[in-house]
Amino acid sequence: MSLTIAFDADDTLWHNETLFAVTSEQISALLAPYAEPESLHRRLIETERRNLRLFGYGVKGFTLSMIESAIEVSDGKVSAGEIQTILEAGKRLLAHPIELLPGVRAALEDLGRHHNLMMITKGDLFHQESRIAMSGLGELFSAVEIVSEKNQETYRRIVRRYHLDLDRFVMVGNSVKSDILPVLEIGARAIHIPYEITWELEMAELGQPDPGRCRLCASIGEVDQAIRAMFQLSST
Amino acid sequence: MSLTIAFDADDTLWHNETLFAVTSEQISALLAPYAEPESLHRRLIETERRNLRLFGYGVKGFTLSMIESAIEVSDGKVSAGEIQTILEAGKRLLAHPIELLPGVRAALEDLGRHHNLMMITKGDLFHQESRIAMSGLGELFSAVEIVSEKNQETYRRIVRRYHLDLDRFVMVGNSVKSDILPVLEIGARAIHIPYEITWELEMAELGQPDPGRCRLCASIGEVDQAIRAMFQLSST
Repeated sequence: MSLTIAFDADDTLWHNETLFAVTSEQISALLAPYAEPESLHRRLIETERRNLRLFGYGVKGFTLSMIESAIEVSDGKVSAGEIQTILEAGKRLLAHPIELLPGVRAALEDLGRHHNLMMITKGDLFHQESRIAMSGLGELFSAVEIVSEKNQETYRRIVRRYHLDLDRFVMVGNSVKSDILPVLEIGARAIHIPYEITWELEMAELGQPDPGRCRLCASIGEVDQAIRAMFQLSST
Repeated sequence: MSLTIAFDADDTLWHNETLFAVTSEQISALLAPYAEPESLHRRLIETERRNLRLFGYGVKGFTLSMIESAIEVSDGKVSAGEIQTILEAGKRLLAHPIELLPGVRAALEDLGRHHNLMMITKGDLFHQESRIAMSGLGELFSAVEIVSEKNQETYRRIVRRYHLDLDRFVMVGNSVKSDILPVLEIGARAIHIPYEITWELEMAELGQPDPGRCRLCASIGEVDQAIRAMFQLSST
């Protein structure tokens, strides 16, 4: 049975959140003279959350939020040199080489022999395009969709645009909030591959989903078998 | 004859560059104690140009470049308060209401009676989506494409994706570099509506194009007539 399998990119195909976490820690260390570590972390996250509706996702918004936080937590005492350090950390994130997760290329090549593969990724258009180019994976996908938010409406729009059969569409990703729940809600299937860390603003509870509609995998190498099990179960 | 007419958005449907220009002037005034106005302006533009390959287009990259410039031109003497002023100017740009250019809605409604209308706009995905929603024009277009760069390859991809007939495709926009030249180069037609100012990084020379392929209009209200003239000329 031939399916359309769509993959999230950040933290599903390549490392992302670990890079943000390392950068956040460096910025926290830089700002340690101005605030207690625990309240500092909370304030960084709060600034990001507050700015999300204005900035959207991605490194540039993250960097602006970090600069804003630095000014706030230091009561305006942060130096231009310290702000420059934050700016440079943001630029390093933007220019950082892509590190694929283990087994990604082989698994995509295998799955691509029998199924139609897509990429559906959220974030900054310009940066995601450059990462896809750097990843060398672009040609394995029949279509790449870079979206500003992953909700039911986004998935419905993609299903319409590519004339997909909901009953033969599977989304694979690390984020319960963005890759799993909205896909199950519109009546398609999903495979959850948790990443080692989850960004606080992406956290959500999956509950106990129907194993004929949703499966958990430890790595992308298990996706093929999970899909077979899922479709066998739901066809009996 | 029914055509596909695609419109650029920034400075074609609504004001944009004037807002950036006002913000740039405010930032220049803020930094006046640190540098001569003329060298300051050149350095702001140079920082933007240098960062374009990393940031792409849009307000967030612009704001980061302005902060970087402020630190540079002041030799690290700019205060956190001054940087906060730049940050807030960037946020005001992001949240700024849409001001349509005169006659835009009426012209689009007229053209939409006989032709298929699209929007092709460059920039930040999240911010452009929110501006399109704010503009209230979204429903007048059969498709909206937000792209990271407008070059021949971008237009070829759109022509393929929507199965457009190159001979019945017209692009309308204010930027010779992004809206006119690449469209003429792939063999389609274009209408140039200059905006009152052009961003330095968008400047290009149009030369003397074939009036059967390319026309100049003073405003969007002249597009219908220009299209008729253009197609009459090229069909005789």
